Amino acid sequence: MQNRITELFGIKYPIIQAGMIWCSGWELASAVSNAGGLGIIGAGSMYPEILLEHVKKCKAATDKPFAVNLPLLYPDIDKHVQTLINEGVKIAFTSAGNPATYTSILKQNGIKVVHVVANEKFAIKSEQCGVDAIVAEGFEAGGHNGREETTTMCLIPQIVNSVKIPVIAAGGIGTGKTMLAAMVLGAEAVQIGSRFVLSYESSAHINFKNAILQAKDGSTELSLKKLTPVRLLKNSFYEKVKNAEQSGATIDELQLLLGRGRAKKGMFEGNLEEGELEIGQISSYIKDILPASQIINNIVNEYNEALLCLQNKFI
Amino acid sequence: MQNRITELFGIKYPIIQAGMIWCSGWELASAVSNAGGLGIIGAGSMYPEILLEHVKKCKAATDKPFAVNLPLLYPDIDKHVQTLINEGVKIAFTSAGNPATYTSILKQNGIKVVHVVANEKFAIKSEQCGVDAIVAEGFEAGGHNGREETTTMCLIPQIVNSVKIPVIAAGGIGTGKTMLAAMVLGAEAVQIGSRFVLSYESSAHINFKNAILQAKDGSTELSLKKLTPVRLLKNSFYEKVKNAEQSGATIDELQLLLGRGRAKKGMFEGNLEEGELEIGQISSYIKDILPASQIINNIVNEYNEALLCLQNKFI
Repeated sequence: MQNRITELFGIKYPIIQAGMIWCSGWELASAVSNAGGLGIIGAGSMYPEILLEHVKKCKAATDKPFAVNLPLLYPDIDKHVQTLINEGVKIAFTSAGNPATYTSILKQNGIKVVHVVANEKFAIKSEQCGVDAIVAEGFEAGGHNGREETTTMCLIPQIVNSVKIPVIAAGGIGTGKTMLAAMVLGAEAVQIGSRFVLSYESSAHINFKNAILQAKDGSTELSLKKLTPVRLLKNSFYEKVKNAEQSGATIDELQLLLGRGRAKKGMFEGNLEEGELEIGQISSYIKDILPASQIINNIVNEYNEALLCLQNKFI
Repeated sequence: MQNRITELFGIKYPIIQAGMIWCSGWELASAVSNAGGLGIIGAGSMYPEILLEHVKKCKAATDKPFAVNLPLLYPDIDKHVQTLINEGVKIAFTSAGNPATYTSILKQNGIKVVHVVANEKFAIKSEQCGVDAIVAEGFEAGGHNGREETTTMCLIPQIVNSVKIPVIAAGGIGTGKTMLAAMVLGAEAVQIGSRFVLSYESSAHINFKNAILQAKDGSTELSLKKLTPVRLLKNSFYEKVKNAEQSGATIDELQLLLGRGRAKKGMFEGNLEEGELEIGQISSYIKDILPASQIINNIVNEYNEALLCLQNKFI
């Protein structure tokens, strides 16, 4: 199956690996791209020179298309943008900021731009800014998330009805069945995060990976809503946040509690007590760590099986 | 298409109208059942003599199967149960309580029992208690909801993997595409609430219906989490709750703020300022009030069209 997304990126499968801080460097991105999906380097946790290194290594590791995720509020964002231009990166996924600011400069340099949104208003705005596609990310997704708390099941049909450019579904997707469900809702591709955190090639700390394997339903929660909402695996740090929030902590108090470097501490250094552990709800039923290529093969096979099962299921 | 759910209930379409306080009396339930779905009388907002009246009227209005929703924490629950037995109601949907308490007495009286859950633990427990099927309700659903905040996209695959009895998906479903997506995830039927609130036959106040028509994404929020989480349409009452919660209000303070009769005031009497307005996230893109039979026809047609579009979409 080819569609607007596979054609836009020049990829075999409409499966995109989410750019994730501390978890998706060149090893994961190149493995996903080599397996026929679109790998994304998560630049939000990288100094400019680190991103440059990852881009160079990714180019050496695959001749397939790959992308870089650029959180637009990143302090050194201009250097990151320059790296993409200098290194000939063909695709940028922008997030956490205003698509009006960087879309035109990226596109002028021949870079395809996809913006990540969590609501209809920003989907429409992104289209007006000239992006090539949108990632619509539901409430169940790991990490930073929208204030509307709209779930993938509700968000995708809403966004698909509101824009003409292709929509990539994110949040709660990591299997062939969830991928097919998202396509039924009108998405033309899926972006998958949590499932790829539990890959051999992800740079998540093994402690973090093992903690995710223990997750059940209810093991994550959208937290720190007075700051920027972020879905976290429940641990000691989460409990401190929760208690502070329930006691009516102010924004400043929460900021002080959060401090700096918590995400690195948790996800990259493996401190399960004090670190911030960003993961999606679907972690509740991911029970193995696999090579990225096998993850993609499993998804493709399950998707095709699920589609086959639907034949003659008319009502 | 026939499956375990259509056979269990003896219905044409695996489409179930949710039992909803103040919105689903005999008129809605009988209209849905007459159109080939399963209508449910929402007994949670009815005095025992009112439920009796609704059951009698529903029996007179349809010769098709219908059900009654029994919130198990309802103070006069024993009288409600007796009404079902006396009147020969064949199907009970139980919710908001322990399925161990009433499943056996209902089943001994030839009543099929379905229990509503929002997490894996209670799904397994319900199966152990001998219920015939489960409704698994995601975070996006209107009204009272689970503390795990698991969305339909994540909850359905999780529950389907955990129990052998059939699973009915609820939350975020109200169109043919969302229904097909839920079936792809493993559900054997869907339970639809918000879409039927916006029917001719629902007893929701016209002010409430009109307010729902104005909803956008982000217009609802899961509120009152320190009491029992409930998804509300944002209004003055919601704002008061939100402010109290953000200031660290205690359970007692929230209980006092909630008071009594807010749901009736909002949904049945049409007081949009002070009432509690329970509705799901999907309200953001429901833009018409229709006869229940047309709602079902539209869903069936869209489902079949979406299924047809999937032919040859193998990847």
